[in-house]
Amino acid sequence: MRRILLATHGEFAAGILNSAEIIIGKSEQVQALCAFTDPTKDFQKQVQTIIEEIQPGDELVVVTDILGGSVNNEFMRYLDHEGLHLISGLNLPLLIELILSTEPDTEKLIEELLEQMPKQIQYCNRIEFEEIPEEF
Amino acid sequence: MRRILLATHGEFAAGILNSAEIIIGKSEQVQALCAFTDPTKDFQKQVQTIIEEIQPGDELVVVTDILGGSVNNEFMRYLDHEGLHLISGLNLPLLIELILSTEPDTEKLIEELLEQMPKQIQYCNRIEFEEIPEEF
Repeated sequence: MRRILLATHGEFAAGILNSAEIIIGKSEQVQALCAFTDPTKDFQKQVQTIIEEIQPGDELVVVTDILGGSVNNEFMRYLDHEGLHLISGLNLPLLIELILSTEPDTEKLIEELLEQMPKQIQYCNRIEFEEIPEEF
Repeated sequence: MRRILLATHGEFAAGILNSAEIIIGKSEQVQALCAFTDPTKDFQKQVQTIIEEIQPGDELVVVTDILGGSVNNEFMRYLDHEGLHLISGLNLPLLIELILSTEPDTEKLIEELLEQMPKQIQYCNRIEFEEIPEEF
């Protein structure tokens, strides 16, 4: 089974999940981890528990807010853990494609999605109207 | 004056602003528009008001959630309005750089930031440790 975890400083993860749900509906495979919002929770322990709960044969795609940030750095420590895939730079086109894709090979899926990013993150004043994809 | 408006379906805009504030502190120049969260508000009118409030000589950088989505499409209608810059594909490294940059030329700034995006949105399982920027 492939699951997706959005992990960010503050409320970003919950916010973008709300946005995705408005566009494509709820998805059971996605969860949000809003780090540093509850001072009673130890973020390092939260991450450790998440990693330990990856079952053999399962895959967890963690998408974090920013490369070099505390959240991404914490997951970087577990990159050799079987089944963990880590992406930095969470954004909505990436999330929606991750949820909707039927590609079974997770590595191939992530590589293909990242190749498409320059088409999604655009200076709209510079693009021609025929380049714009269908409306969501 | 240059201002930044984050405009998204649902709570994404407010969420990522909260995330940026945790990392770099509050910024008076940034606002969040969470579309379709209040059924009493007409989104088209909200956008029209935002555009009309751009003062001569001022610049508004609108960063939306997804190219081809309802939010981005609504702002696309005003691309010929003086002072409006529209970017799709909101993400945290882009937002932080937009806030912190001292580059006075907004067009140049946006073009440079978008060029940097492939370094920020990465499959971390594939990168070497020396490529990772300093911690936030």
